[in-house]
Amino acid sequence: MPARIPILTLTTDFGTADHFAGTMKGVILSICPQGRIVDLSHEIGPYQIGEAAFTVAQAYPYFPRKTVHVVVVDPGVGTERRPVLVEAAGQYFIGPDNGVFGMIFERENHAVREITNTRLFLANVSRTFHGRDVFAPAAAHLAKGLAPARFGNKIDNYLRPRAAKPERTGRRQWTGEALKVDRFGNLITNFHVKDFPDLEVRPFEMQVGLQMVRTMAANYQSAAAGEPFLIAGSSGFLEVAVSQNSAAKLLGCGPGAPCELTIF
Amino acid sequence: MPARIPILTLTTDFGTADHFAGTMKGVILSICPQGRIVDLSHEIGPYQIGEAAFTVAQAYPYFPRKTVHVVVVDPGVGTERRPVLVEAAGQYFIGPDNGVFGMIFERENHAVREITNTRLFLANVSRTFHGRDVFAPAAAHLAKGLAPARFGNKIDNYLRPRAAKPERTGRRQWTGEALKVDRFGNLITNFHVKDFPDLEVRPFEMQVGLQMVRTMAANYQSAAAGEPFLIAGSSGFLEVAVSQNSAAKLLGCGPGAPCELTIF
Amino acid sequence: MPARIPILTLTTDFGTADHFAGTMKGVILSICPQGRIVDLSHEIGPYQIGEAAFTVAQAYPYFPRKTVHVVVVDPGVGTERRPVLVEAAGQYFIGPDNGVFGMIFERENHAVREITNTRLFLANVSRTFHGRDVFAPAAAHLAKGLAPARFGNKIDNYLRPRAAKPERTGRRQWTGEALKVDRFGNLITNFHVKDFPDLEVRPFEMQVGLQMVRTMAANYQSAAAGEPFLIAGSSGFLEVAVSQNSAAKLLGCGPGAPCELTIF
Repeated sequence: MPARIPILTLTTDFGTADHFAGTMKGVILSICPQGRIVDLSHEIGPYQIGEAAFTVAQAYPYFPRKTVHVVVVDPGVGTERRPVLVEAAGQYFIGPDNGVFGMIFERENHAVREITNTRLFLANVSRTFHGRDVFAPAAAHLAKGLAPARFGNKIDNYLRPRAAKPERTGRRQWTGEALKVDRFGNLITNFHVKDFPDLEVRPFEMQVGLQMVRTMAANYQSAAAGEPFLIAGSSGFLEVAVSQNSAAKLLGCGPGAPCELTIF
Repeated sequence: MPARIPILTLTTDFGTADHFAGTMKGVILSICPQGRIVDLSHEIGPYQIGEAAFTVAQAYPYFPRKTVHVVVVDPGVGTERRPVLVEAAGQYFIGPDNGVFGMIFERENHAVREITNTRLFLANVSRTFHGRDVFAPAAAHLAKGLAPARFGNKIDNYLRPRAAKPERTGRRQWTGEALKVDRFGNLITNFHVKDFPDLEVRPFEMQVGLQMVRTMAANYQSAAAGEPFLIAGSSGFLEVAVSQNSAAKLLGCGPGAPCELTIF
Repeated sequence: MPARIPILTLTTDFGTADHFAGTMKGVILSICPQGRIVDLSHEIGPYQIGEAAFTVAQAYPYFPRKTVHVVVVDPGVGTERRPVLVEAAGQYFIGPDNGVFGMIFERENHAVREITNTRLFLANVSRTFHGRDVFAPAAAHLAKGLAPARFGNKIDNYLRPRAAKPERTGRRQWTGEALKVDRFGNLITNFHVKDFPDLEVRPFEMQVGLQMVRTMAANYQSAAAGEPFLIAGSSGFLEVAVSQNSAAKLLGCGPGAPCELTIF
């Protein structure tokens, strides 16, 4: 039987123009040359912890057991915030203890360790690039097979951000929000498709920006041109979309925009 | 002899900021952990089938036999358009039946199969992300060695877009168009270098936008500054270029701009 | 013992929208299927040789021995400029002889060969895409284990750009410059941290644009909001930063901006 191939993913706000992401890969391959490294995104908005949390939460269910997901969106680099190793869903997550793993904590049984074993870091840890000096080498050792217990002890006072669920504001009314805008301009809301099965069968309206959305569509082409509609997104969330156009632009809305749902 | 290493390429309009491309890679590596995945581009303009067709057509001749090229530019996702598997030039191509493989059909002997074997897809196929749920898993099974015949039957009513060749409009006159603008602002035309050998030896003019181009250059530095010229592009097409500047900007032209050639 | 896994990195100004980088990878994998390819950056500004030099110089110390770094920022493609192979720091560097390896020449013992063995190139070398036709195949042969001597003879008249060190302009005064702006808007100067240890203990001022910078901070969060400060960058250079903001934008400065340091 061939040896298991270690897989690591990277999610950062480093962009791809600078040497940052590539340098992390050099560190990883120096320690774990067999590792396969997958970029989830390096274009998380600078310091946007919530966006990073969403991105890694969307992707991890599609990766094999024991994948090591490294998330470095880390405005607190060089301060006392702790590096952590999370075990959840048969996979591993490494990053700063700042809430980036919040959506995983919501969904999965998990254990969190503070990474205190500094021998797993590079010899000289800079004050500003822990992606290279702390997280990459730790992740590489984990991918290579080092047991989680060797990284540090379990903690229970890690940061758990408030769950971003819609709030019930009436018998048949909820106030949620847009979590993010994707490449196509779709507004991904925090309404879970499976929590609102009625939308397929009952009249509803969702106010987003100044506009009322009243239809649910099965695909991006079935709605009238220019008309915003709801669609069951691949993310598991309801998305506000417009056929071959940007709903975000058309509605003038972005992340954080309130979405008020009434089902009749 | 070591086992053949499976290679897959990805060409999408997903961008690299969202989790889309990374998630497809998770699906592929879950099925075919040995696979090497190469990004051709994730920055195809949203829904720009012609641009995707050009990109994959430029790259595939440089990949080894049995490479699996996955193209997901798919405005019709969730409608009745068919997923197809194309065999051509000793390699494989997987994507929607919407014309993305048009430039390959023009050049190569090929066979096209409709992918009807839904057991090759993920268990729950979403309505909006077939890159993850349909194309990535099918490609991974193919890369792993599953025979094309297992994917579905051959079809002959697949979509073949009109070939984008220049039209002859006079004895020594042709009307073509700009296929795309590359990173450097070069306008890649649909004039095949080898169809117009006279340009090297006879006077000519090509009208592009409001400008006349009358010189052919051997490299990007040999022309006068600010002066547009033709060059035999690495794509095999004639390109309109300006030394260390963007021809597209200078001429105010983009994809689709007419290019009128007269050879004297 | 498992075979060494060949690692190659790519640094280009090709962007990631076009097929250029992906095509180079096809060429590399055709020759060296075991190769692991890491993107350092494809977003070097078009023709910005200095930026490419900085990027590869930042990353190579973190890669394993025998890594092959390919740099293709090549305004002179198709002219008489020479392709070179550099051996330095136990690693290899391949690219045009135009100064892209200048920062490595400054730091490391090195040997430079002109690549004259055209059998290592693709059969048809285009005039405009040596990344694909010359540098990628040469790099792949090197990664696969071909000895450097097989590429061509050593030369000593390769291009060595002037070192970009600050100039001493008074007993306690230096004039340097900003080398680049990173993703976060930090201005990376050419002042080496280790050459200016006094900054940690003595009052100083650095004029950058119209602004005086008078504080040295240990991390990005310890300074007052909106206040520019110096920080020992992970690059080994002093960087001008602003907490959670772009110093470059706030100071209205970019690459090449003068930085005038006085230590009191």
